Amino acid sequence: MAAVKPENLSLVVHGPGDLRLENYPIPEPGPNEVLLKMHSVGICGSDVHYWQHGRIGDFIVEKPMVLGHEASGTVVKVGSLVKHLKPGDRVAIEPGALREMDEFCKIGRYNLSPSIFFCATPPDDGNLCRFYKHNADFCYKLVPETWPGHLGPLPLWLGFFLLALLGGTEGSSPHLGQHCKEAFRSPLDLSASRLSKAKEVGADNVLQVSKESPKEIASKVEGLLGCKPEVTIECTGAEPAIQSGIYATRSGGTLVLVGLGPEMTTVPLVHAAIREVDIKGVFRYCNTWPMAISMLASKSVNVKPLVTHRFPLEKALEAFETARKGLGLKVMLKCDPKDQNP
Amino acid sequence: MAAVKPENLSLVVHGPGDLRLENYPIPEPGPNEVLLKMHSVGICGSDVHYWQHGRIGDFIVEKPMVLGHEASGTVVKVGSLVKHLKPGDRVAIEPGALREMDEFCKIGRYNLSPSIFFCATPPDDGNLCRFYKHNADFCYKLVPETWPGHLGPLPLWLGFFLLALLGGTEGSSPHLGQHCKEAFRSPLDLSASRLSKAKEVGADNVLQVSKESPKEIASKVEGLLGCKPEVTIECTGAEPAIQSGIYATRSGGTLVLVGLGPEMTTVPLVHAAIREVDIKGVFRYCNTWPMAISMLASKSVNVKPLVTHRFPLEKALEAFETARKGLGLKVMLKCDPKDQNP
Amino acid sequence: MAAVKPENLSLVVHGPGDLRLENYPIPEPGPNEVLLKMHSVGICGSDVHYWQHGRIGDFIVEKPMVLGHEASGTVVKVGSLVKHLKPGDRVAIEPGALREMDEFCKIGRYNLSPSIFFCATPPDDGNLCRFYKHNADFCYKLVPETWPGHLGPLPLWLGFFLLALLGGTEGSSPHLGQHCKEAFRSPLDLSASRLSKAKEVGADNVLQVSKESPKEIASKVEGLLGCKPEVTIECTGAEPAIQSGIYATRSGGTLVLVGLGPEMTTVPLVHAAIREVDIKGVFRYCNTWPMAISMLASKSVNVKPLVTHRFPLEKALEAFETARKGLGLKVMLKCDPKDQNP
Amino acid sequence: MAAVKPENLSLVVHGPGDLRLENYPIPEPGPNEVLLKMHSVGICGSDVHYWQHGRIGDFIVEKPMVLGHEASGTVVKVGSLVKHLKPGDRVAIEPGALREMDEFCKIGRYNLSPSIFFCATPPDDGNLCRFYKHNADFCYKLVPETWPGHLGPLPLWLGFFLLALLGGTEGSSPHLGQHCKEAFRSPLDLSASRLSKAKEVGADNVLQVSKESPKEIASKVEGLLGCKPEVTIECTGAEPAIQSGIYATRSGGTLVLVGLGPEMTTVPLVHAAIREVDIKGVFRYCNTWPMAISMLASKSVNVKPLVTHRFPLEKALEAFETARKGLGLKVMLKCDPKDQNP
Repeated sequence: MAAVKPENLSLVVHGPGDLRLENYPIPEPGPNEVLLKMHSVGICGSDVHYWQHGRIGDFIVEKPMVLGHEASGTVVKVGSLVKHLKPGDRVAIEPGALREMDEFCKIGRYNLSPSIFFCATPPDDGNLCRFYKHNADFCYKLVPETWPGHLGPLPLWLGFFLLALLGGTEGSSPHLGQHCKEAFRSPLDLSASRLSKAKEVGADNVLQVSKESPKEIASKVEGLLGCKPEVTIECTGAEPAIQSGIYATRSGGTLVLVGLGPEMTTVPLVHAAIREVDIKGVFRYCNTWPMAISMLASKSVNVKPLVTHRFPLEKALEAFETARKGLGLKVMLKCDPKDQNP
Repeated sequence: MAAVKPENLSLVVHGPGDLRLENYPIPEPGPNEVLLKMHSVGICGSDVHYWQHGRIGDFIVEKPMVLGHEASGTVVKVGSLVKHLKPGDRVAIEPGALREMDEFCKIGRYNLSPSIFFCATPPDDGNLCRFYKHNADFCYKLVPETWPGHLGPLPLWLGFFLLALLGGTEGSSPHLGQHCKEAFRSPLDLSASRLSKAKEVGADNVLQVSKESPKEIASKVEGLLGCKPEVTIECTGAEPAIQSGIYATRSGGTLVLVGLGPEMTTVPLVHAAIREVDIKGVFRYCNTWPMAISMLASKSVNVKPLVTHRFPLEKALEAFETARKGLGLKVMLKCDPKDQNP
Repeated sequence: MAAVKPENLSLVVHGPGDLRLENYPIPEPGPNEVLLKMHSVGICGSDVHYWQHGRIGDFIVEKPMVLGHEASGTVVKVGSLVKHLKPGDRVAIEPGALREMDEFCKIGRYNLSPSIFFCATPPDDGNLCRFYKHNADFCYKLVPETWPGHLGPLPLWLGFFLLALLGGTEGSSPHLGQHCKEAFRSPLDLSASRLSKAKEVGADNVLQVSKESPKEIASKVEGLLGCKPEVTIECTGAEPAIQSGIYATRSGGTLVLVGLGPEMTTVPLVHAAIREVDIKGVFRYCNTWPMAISMLASKSVNVKPLVTHRFPLEKALEAFETARKGLGLKVMLKCDPKDQNP
Repeated sequence: MAAVKPENLSLVVHGPGDLRLENYPIPEPGPNEVLLKMHSVGICGSDVHYWQHGRIGDFIVEKPMVLGHEASGTVVKVGSLVKHLKPGDRVAIEPGALREMDEFCKIGRYNLSPSIFFCATPPDDGNLCRFYKHNADFCYKLVPETWPGHLGPLPLWLGFFLLALLGGTEGSSPHLGQHCKEAFRSPLDLSASRLSKAKEVGADNVLQVSKESPKEIASKVEGLLGCKPEVTIECTGAEPAIQSGIYATRSGGTLVLVGLGPEMTTVPLVHAAIREVDIKGVFRYCNTWPMAISMLASKSVNVKPLVTHRFPLEKALEAFETARKGLGLKVMLKCDPKDQNP
């Protein structure tokens, strides 16, 4: 480990319910890394979950871990082998970064690499701090149209239905992206306020459901859209929602699973099979950033209204309390004391 | 309905347990149809099921129905618009035949067309008879290498693990075909005798399982093959087998569902999702025949040993009794009294 | 041929330079057909070419042929087997209509069927007339958002760079569609006035070229976009433009050929091969209409400004003269004397 | 550069016509590398070309370069970060090895990475020597069925029509692999002796051509196969052969370009476009080795007969002379003085 310097305020989870602001040393970037002055970091549901429970499934906080993985920052130092970035560049940070060129990487599905580094997933530290080093290959330069920071932390939106929009598992293919934009226009939710916010950012076919059966929900979706959707994106992981997704999708179409639910799920699998509705999971990110940045640059999506709260890093505990209570939509932490602009 | 002529011995199910050999009229082919002298028809599990129960799910035998859909025959008469066939041609019969050019047909997934004709699925008659008319576009000419009849009734093998071999849902893509051949080489079964037969037709990595847990089975598969398979083909529809398939498949791979099970199934869906194991159903046939005939012609598969019993059509009840008892593998009916050759 | 009735003003080409307005009988729709009262028909470059030269390549006008294939109309009568349309429905007309269920149709690439009917391609008549019958499966119902007629004749835009937008050869996949939208935003042309019109309908990265070499053009494209495009769409068929397209496309990307040029073309094929730039032709239409109608309905494209001239059918010769001179962009004929609205 | 040790006989090209056996130091593997004792290295046409001309296109031998890239060897030392290999492992060597995780790598098309290392392509040294170090991620362990060495140097066959068999550009997809096997069964060549050798290794539809026109050749192919092939693989780069490939391929199919020809080629591009015959280059290797090794392990191909000459490394000049004269098919150099077995 390289020598480190002080003055790096960081938000650290020590175990269930134990969240502390601590002063970490400033890390030294390796040959392939860049050191970043963090600008904006969104609070994700998983951050809150690690704080509350000290674990997510088999991922257990066994030693203090810095939280945060929805992030943007400014390059302040580059490693000796880094060519595409220089100090002063503003970047969005992809939280997964390959550690080895394995079989999954070679076929363009690096998100499935078992040895991947991933911000704020034990034992890997996240980037809710002042200074953070990251593999330079997973830092994407932002142009003025995609900066300032409220646009930088792209994965921010993933805790919300926008995950869909940014999700893409098929190399650089915009295939899923196109469907995601359509899904984005037609969200279905239990919450009137979330749907109202969805309208604000561009949705036009919103559907609020409450106690309908999965088949009834599928029927309402068809009624609203005039046909069954070719692609349905499920973002909750809840069993009834997955069942609805199978019934709702057009024969020959695809149900994309973004939400993660319990270990075992009871679903009408034969109904999916005989109508050839494929069930396809999306795990984390793969070639997501270039496509998402391009969407933002072309103004084909507008994500600004989704950020409802902003706090300086010093008030991180208050910010996490806000996120835990489910107030608003996205809570953002501003990590640069000299630049608290959105 | 066109005028008809007598002398067409046919095997007809009238309801649960009520199976009769009856004399039907010989049908007259329409403009796009051919009249066929039937040669060989295999007994499928669904034929036995309609005989025993009078229904399969929502498909109910409400009026007498001719059974049989795994079939080959010889053209004896062609409709006025038929150009690619002539009397004397020997053909394999694809049991599904489109009735209209709908949205599913236009995208090359005609098997999903809701209005499709399908042999021996109520209310459509099958071809366990002497003479049968069929949409000429779904009759495929056989060359000497793919005839005699024991090769003609291709779907014959579908009740068995070979369905996989012949299944292909992606246009004319041999993609799945290649995987199917690999799956064919490495079957897993509860039955020692079926695995022994599999070895006879070319399998080399057979795995017999009994009471192992799904995770244990997945582990044994990986041990046998040296790695997790990229594609797993599930042919039983049984819940534990589907669960095993999810655990066994390589991250980023595909579990193909061929077997049809109960309405609701409990599966480790989140395990599939976070490893991006796609779950993909195969329904009936789509562009299967040209690929399967080409495989037979190139001798890349040898299916002869799978036919273990043959009966003349007159002994159909005895043949069905043999199939019902699960004796042997495939039971074949020979429909042409003048040509009982295999 | 069914009995016919009079009073069907039609625009007929008899040979090179010989274009006449004639009174044809009103046709009677067959069982799978609908009779349409024509509303709007755009003039395509091929219509002008048949008028001027009496042929396009091997397609020769050997008997009088009605022109027109970019069309919309209203159903006035339906054949006995038609279920999804009824009198009064307004429809867009796909000019290609399958005559048989051949191997190309079965894999979802029906545009390649050699026996396909195609409007205004010898010997098949087009729809520049008052009344026209068409295969009902290739008539697509328009909703108010996609009607009135100036939106109905979708292929209208295909003579122009919008062909790209509507082109899609991969089943119902929006894959190409997404790329087309991006291409639509970044057109390259020799003509300043066409690029100005392109800006009006949504393009923002226009590039006017004149005498640059293909490599220089490729370099300008990269400079404008900030990177080489993943998909380039070539709409002229001109050799230098195809060469530019090969140089301009990103390694691993695709050059789509829409424009049709001379029989032999000299291209840097090895340059394409070693950078794995695929060269992919798009022939006519395949599953284009549903996607295009959906784009119009969602207002993701605005094609209104492209129609610069409108004439009643009676003034067809004047309209063709306007088109021949290259005045404006799209010249539209209004076929319904009682509804000349755009 | 790490310290090096002596005793490493190497075949070095210094410029046109200047080929020397020299003693190089034994290299020291880096953290991600392995040191290999070379076993077998095939002579490729490109090796002969660098010797004869000192360049291939823009790749110029500006300083002495070790030749050789079709190779297998045994691990003798592993770098500190290497986990999947250990001394004693026998491996096949993929000659391209990534230097950085760029955009092409991320989408699974690492062969297109502009900064890739490639054996015996200036300025990168090859492996026609006693000891060689290579990126461990591009060394693939061989099992007894795929060793001894005459199977190890897989790309060996690429100078010949087998390139096709091993070529795969679509991630781990066996799609092209299946077509390649079919192409392998039906080769077309000018040389009777090459076709005779092709028969020996499994081809059954061989076609010898001489002075036929491209259209005549296409017609002969269709006659031989009974239909136009869906995929045609062109391995010469010669203009008439590429033209034949376009005419010969089925509508909607693919012409794969493996052979590299002159900078500009004149082809019937419009003929390809209107029949939607895609033209697709294959550049070097991408995910080729695992598929090829699996094919060898399953005995689905037999490549032994293709090696017609073997020489010890000390007689490399004689071996290159044999290759230059076009005697036999593949000439192999045996680099391990203690193990000269095939």
